[in-house]
Amino acid sequence: MKYAWILFIFSFLIGQTKAQDSLVIRRIYDEALLRGQAYENLRQLCKDIGPRLSGSAQAQMAVDWSYEKMRAYQFDKVTKQEITVPHWERGTTETAWYKSVNQYAPVRKLHLLALGGSIGTNGLLEAEIIEFETMAELKNAKAKEVEGKIVFLNQPMDAAQIQTFKAYGACYAIRGNGAVEAGKLGAKAVVIRSLGLPIDEHPHTGSMHYEKDIPKIPAAALATKDADALSTALQAGKVRFYLEMDCREFPDATSYNVMAEIKGSIHPEQIITIGGHLDSWDTGEGAHDDGAGVIHCLEALRIIQTLGIKPTHTIRVVFFMNEENGNQGGQQYAKWCLANGEKQIAAMESDRGGFAPRGFGLDGPDQYLGMLQSFEPMLRSYDLHVFEKGYGGVDIGPLKEQYPGIPLFGFVPDSQRYFDYHHAPSDVFESVNKRELELGAAAIASFVYLLDKNL
Amino acid sequence: MKYAWILFIFSFLIGQTKAQDSLVIRRIYDEALLRGQAYENLRQLCKDIGPRLSGSAQAQMAVDWSYEKMRAYQFDKVTKQEITVPHWERGTTETAWYKSVNQYAPVRKLHLLALGGSIGTNGLLEAEIIEFETMAELKNAKAKEVEGKIVFLNQPMDAAQIQTFKAYGACYAIRGNGAVEAGKLGAKAVVIRSLGLPIDEHPHTGSMHYEKDIPKIPAAALATKDADALSTALQAGKVRFYLEMDCREFPDATSYNVMAEIKGSIHPEQIITIGGHLDSWDTGEGAHDDGAGVIHCLEALRIIQTLGIKPTHTIRVVFFMNEENGNQGGQQYAKWCLANGEKQIAAMESDRGGFAPRGFGLDGPDQYLGMLQSFEPMLRSYDLHVFEKGYGGVDIGPLKEQYPGIPLFGFVPDSQRYFDYHHAPSDVFESVNKRELELGAAAIASFVYLLDKNL
Repeated sequence: MKYAWILFIFSFLIGQTKAQDSLVIRRIYDEALLRGQAYENLRQLCKDIGPRLSGSAQAQMAVDWSYEKMRAYQFDKVTKQEITVPHWERGTTETAWYKSVNQYAPVRKLHLLALGGSIGTNGLLEAEIIEFETMAELKNAKAKEVEGKIVFLNQPMDAAQIQTFKAYGACYAIRGNGAVEAGKLGAKAVVIRSLGLPIDEHPHTGSMHYEKDIPKIPAAALATKDADALSTALQAGKVRFYLEMDCREFPDATSYNVMAEIKGSIHPEQIITIGGHLDSWDTGEGAHDDGAGVIHCLEALRIIQTLGIKPTHTIRVVFFMNEENGNQGGQQYAKWCLANGEKQIAAMESDRGGFAPRGFGLDGPDQYLGMLQSFEPMLRSYDLHVFEKGYGGVDIGPLKEQYPGIPLFGFVPDSQRYFDYHHAPSDVFESVNKRELELGAAAIASFVYLLDKNL
Repeated sequence: MKYAWILFIFSFLIGQTKAQDSLVIRRIYDEALLRGQAYENLRQLCKDIGPRLSGSAQAQMAVDWSYEKMRAYQFDKVTKQEITVPHWERGTTETAWYKSVNQYAPVRKLHLLALGGSIGTNGLLEAEIIEFETMAELKNAKAKEVEGKIVFLNQPMDAAQIQTFKAYGACYAIRGNGAVEAGKLGAKAVVIRSLGLPIDEHPHTGSMHYEKDIPKIPAAALATKDADALSTALQAGKVRFYLEMDCREFPDATSYNVMAEIKGSIHPEQIITIGGHLDSWDTGEGAHDDGAGVIHCLEALRIIQTLGIKPTHTIRVVFFMNEENGNQGGQQYAKWCLANGEKQIAAMESDRGGFAPRGFGLDGPDQYLGMLQSFEPMLRSYDLHVFEKGYGGVDIGPLKEQYPGIPLFGFVPDSQRYFDYHHAPSDVFESVNKRELELGAAAIASFVYLLDKNL
């Protein structure tokens, strides 16, 4: 009987807490949707500054903008962390076309972007082009087939994959390793089919790498529509490919992670890191990738502060630099935290675009899965339904090495439109829907509120 | 022991069936995403024909297009059902502006659309305009305050509502009944704030009505941005409003529901109706509302046929006419089914746009809820998570009267962007994402497959 009473009181208290949590979450959503600043902040980042590749003047403007914005919000502490980043520039010439025996369309100028990190062509490069449908096919090729030619890697993303990030992952190698594999076989350059789902005229850039002792060759991505046209031309006979790019690497540059925090009321020494990356590719405006992510997190911190929520632990927002081509921001942040004796207890990243929220994934020990799933009843009416194992994020990833066992969480918006825009000139402010962006910020603020209470 | 064996075999058979269902659903998604025809069909409907208001020449083109398209797909039976529909036309003049004592912006030309069914102004109408924030406020007003003036109903949709259709429902009365309530008080016209969520320059039209013995007055919707500007002008002092519209009603016209079916292999006499509405407002291209819905259902039937799925019951796709301003298609269809002795056993409608699918709602007896929820495990990996009580649709609604107890289902896509486009000039083909549309068709085909097996 006595135990029954204890149980009753306990249940009552839990009920009270849940009711209180629900009220706080409702206030978070009201603030985001009725008095939100996310959309205007994203507009400034995309339109007043624009694309923000590491080492560029615009990346520095974005650092300054972020720092001033965080200070204007009067967070407890606003700092910049100096880091060293690569500095690559696209240059001013980027032209490609082909000539084919196809009588219907004998010459076609192509929509193409150099891959980030590629060397230039040193004038016009001209060669026969040879197509491979997969990376495996290229690896099985003989050097004499490839030598002196341009390699065309035409592996399409699998549209049948419901989770578009899986389709992206399956093609990642043609962009990341294409130049190495083609270089090994003596190719003069490598041209890949863009890692994008629609068939359109937007090429998608992204990172690539070279390896020691393998000849460096220029690497570029073709718009999917052009890749299809080139493939058709190759079915008709030999195709000469013309490529001129003057992109190049510069000496490493100094840049910054930018961060702000709200001090924990009970455990200020224990830190929950949330963030996204401030840098972007140099085409488009980095609106979904990852303007939306940094603005989500900034807005979440603003909402928490504005509503007078006093988190138990310190909540720190980090705008990471250099996720796109080196991840120096993420790596140096994790090391710096440990070197400073900081206690990092959890981290969350938003780097999947500003689309309608679906939920959160856990990248960490199973013991945190129950906690994550316990959030669902309070967030279900906000259309959040993904509470499962998943991926955290590139920027927060290195925290795992420095803090073994730390739970990392990734914000999961709807993924269906992401690869329409990813790394493409179309990733501009106009491609982000105001309401979807605001719902993302509210979902993240609510998640951080619950995470702080349950850790 | 004996029972244990029976249980084992039973479980095994259920397991086999589920595994088989999963394979069929996977094939449905592959067909929709890899060889889909939905996007091209929607392009034709939006671009080759355009908006399709009941009674218009374009509505007739759409009927012909649908009938020929269904015949080209060689469905078992393709028919048109003759119905009578209202015929209203916007005319060629639709101009509005205001003059205000506001020195900063003394005159503003407005983005405005007559509401469907409104009378014209019979030349330029000019009067002082008076603002009400809600319908309730207008109802409480005295005739002498309103008489001879233009009523401005400036009730915004509540952006804090997560389910945007609820925010729409809460404002519906200002559009549907504004002319009646303002007319009762002697107003010369009524102008409403558009039922749209973004603050932009797209006015949103939609249906309104008049009542017997209450003076008919012109009714129109202002773009939200203009509504805000007008409200600001009214804070500065009196505002004169100028309105000229030559929209008018014509005699009723003949039109058609268009339908096609795949005969049931076991119960051909039992019919599952799926559909959307072919008509649209006369602005934009009716892409989300409801081009997407009819194309979803057409594509679902095509996929079922293409994959050689033999449904047990007859699956009938209906492109309903006149959902927007009269629902004659839905009403006459339900009566016609009963009069023909048809056995309608379930219906599903898609009329919430072509966005990423979330699931299905049940409008019908609770006994069907368990069945609906039993679909979830097979559809969860396709990002479908809504399997609950909900709303069916306007077109299939009248089946409830003729077939008491019939379960109606509504397709539920993500609702966040719907009221950016609903009834506005921006509801064009380009606002529909190819992949989201295809996923909708696949979700509906999968749902129909499961529904047919479980009824």
